[in-house]
Amino acid sequence: MSNKKAGGAGLRGQSAGETTLCTVGQSGSGLTYCGYDIADLAENVTFEEVAYLLFNGELPTQQQLDSYKTELNTLRDLPQALKEVLKLIPANSHPMDVMRTGCSFLGNLEPEADFSEQKRASNRLLAAFPAIMCYWYRYSHDGVEIDCQTDQPTLGGHFLKLLKGETASLQHQRVMDVSLILYAEHEFNASTFTARVCASTLSDMFSCTTGAIGTLRGPLHGGANEAAMDMIEKFTSPEDAKEKMGLMLERKEKIMGFGHAIYKTSDPRNIIIKKWSEKLAKENGDTSLYDISVACEEFMWDTKKLFCNADFFHASTYNYMGIPTKLFTPIFVCSRLTGWAAHVMEQRANNRIIRPSADYTGSAPRKVIAIAEREA
Amino acid sequence: MSNKKAGGAGLRGQSAGETTLCTVGQSGSGLTYCGYDIADLAENVTFEEVAYLLFNGELPTQQQLDSYKTELNTLRDLPQALKEVLKLIPANSHPMDVMRTGCSFLGNLEPEADFSEQKRASNRLLAAFPAIMCYWYRYSHDGVEIDCQTDQPTLGGHFLKLLKGETASLQHQRVMDVSLILYAEHEFNASTFTARVCASTLSDMFSCTTGAIGTLRGPLHGGANEAAMDMIEKFTSPEDAKEKMGLMLERKEKIMGFGHAIYKTSDPRNIIIKKWSEKLAKENGDTSLYDISVACEEFMWDTKKLFCNADFFHASTYNYMGIPTKLFTPIFVCSRLTGWAAHVMEQRANNRIIRPSADYTGSAPRKVIAIAEREA
Repeated sequence: MSNKKAGGAGLRGQSAGETTLCTVGQSGSGLTYCGYDIADLAENVTFEEVAYLLFNGELPTQQQLDSYKTELNTLRDLPQALKEVLKLIPANSHPMDVMRTGCSFLGNLEPEADFSEQKRASNRLLAAFPAIMCYWYRYSHDGVEIDCQTDQPTLGGHFLKLLKGETASLQHQRVMDVSLILYAEHEFNASTFTARVCASTLSDMFSCTTGAIGTLRGPLHGGANEAAMDMIEKFTSPEDAKEKMGLMLERKEKIMGFGHAIYKTSDPRNIIIKKWSEKLAKENGDTSLYDISVACEEFMWDTKKLFCNADFFHASTYNYMGIPTKLFTPIFVCSRLTGWAAHVMEQRANNRIIRPSADYTGSAPRKVIAIAEREA
Repeated sequence: MSNKKAGGAGLRGQSAGETTLCTVGQSGSGLTYCGYDIADLAENVTFEEVAYLLFNGELPTQQQLDSYKTELNTLRDLPQALKEVLKLIPANSHPMDVMRTGCSFLGNLEPEADFSEQKRASNRLLAAFPAIMCYWYRYSHDGVEIDCQTDQPTLGGHFLKLLKGETASLQHQRVMDVSLILYAEHEFNASTFTARVCASTLSDMFSCTTGAIGTLRGPLHGGANEAAMDMIEKFTSPEDAKEKMGLMLERKEKIMGFGHAIYKTSDPRNIIIKKWSEKLAKENGDTSLYDISVACEEFMWDTKKLFCNADFFHASTYNYMGIPTKLFTPIFVCSRLTGWAAHVMEQRANNRIIRPSADYTGSAPRKVIAIAEREA
């Protein structure tokens, strides 16, 4: 039981490998992708450029970006068999079960034959995920079989048009773009680590991604923005928010969207998404959801010294764009696929199977007793 | 980069948690489930008793076993929607993609609502996996829509009858039973570790299992018995085997089914399955596949001091029972589900999210350059 403490603590602070993709909290609060600060990326590039960066290590030139977006555009539609599968999934299924199944099923139809196809497979999933989510959602909830292709140049705009059937405003397209950038990559978080463990057996990209989706599904990982939405929509005003949160803390209820396992003083993604939430509130005219969110932020800082993480202001942001709450975590999938796939490629490039040990705390050696003589 | 070496080596020898379920190689070669030696279990109990042991910590009484088998019998059939999905998967798909997708899809229809349902969900998968495998296989390969229920009292017999349409001999039923026991559990192997990482976000049993299947799919983990079969069926005699293996070693080709990451001198499962392979060879009359396998074992020991692991004699064993090679790894899934699910339950009982760190080896901080000024 040499490593009991470390192991029992979820490998926290233990290195499980190397990466060139990301730093988290290196100066206490920073987040970088391939050396670029998240604020710089969210201000100056598009999500497709971030995907290209994570898959290739460098930002694209205009020509490379044009060519990449053209490639992604050809990969958006779904095979008919996958549409049939999505139609068989009930409306009350967990949307993350839908994403996991859509990803897994696509792997049957368009397998990654060998690792020379890893970028093709990754781009296929990146381009197809919005349609997997929206085809199921619109069919199961509205009875509509949507066209999975749109004329939208960006994945963010494509998703919004699939969901709503009409072209979103340029501002909404850009907010979605920024949101996808913010969620794209985050070092060895649990879902990414799952993808790397899976990749370490030299399994295929669809398996790695399917496993990562299943891991992101857990309420300790994805889902915090949904939980934040469920909470803030119950508050009627900033004052009501503070009063009810006080009662929640008294009852020791978990409040989602605050604090972080790695960041200690702030989440660098929060300031970015919070600004967009404010802009959308002003555009909307009814700023109450934003005002309530700010009250929540103040309250948690004043009482618990806890800061908003990336998820908290995503709730009001998505809500202002008319996105159903149950699709918040599937959007996370559409974004984080880029990080997962980049980590799979990185693991493959310098692989050893990830196979830790365990400390045994079970029964001493014993012998099988004949079944008639066993006692209940 | 404090932990660079350890992390780069796939966490080998590092504890990632505690378990009461299994010891591997503690005295150099042993394998125990809940304190029972694998040889004792393979000789004296059935696979359903092992499943009960792993899920409950104790072997069942006769009454408990009867009741458990009755429960499993009611969980064998597949929902019509899942059959429709399996019919949409082509014959040339990877059988592990089929298992992964079948598991994932079932999670949409019969979700684990909360952890009080974890045994029900585990038993459902345990009982349904043979049908998921055989329904797809028989439909895609033979055009037959099989009845997913049989009159067979054991899962091993049930699987063989689903596959072949007739009741297997008692000897074949017992061999399948033993095989399922041997593959049931193996501590923190990569697929089980995936299941635990997934479980650590408090995700559901179907997600954990789906991720584990995707991890087992990799050729460094599952699939060694298939690779062994592909090799030995090319050999025409024991002498031919030794000659061709010598050439393979000269060409530095990887020979599957030998050696082990944890075991150093022998794999305790090999002696058990080897004896069954010999019995089936004698029953068959044509012992050549067994004789060739023995020649391979001798050759690898004499030239490389490498011993057969659990997979090597599984190849001839399954082949003597008429099981198609492409179903070897899916059978592994039917067995290892018990270990995966038991580890998920154990992780949940004392959970902290598994979130290691990484050593950053990437670009120094840099600033985004306007796209027009980037160089290819």
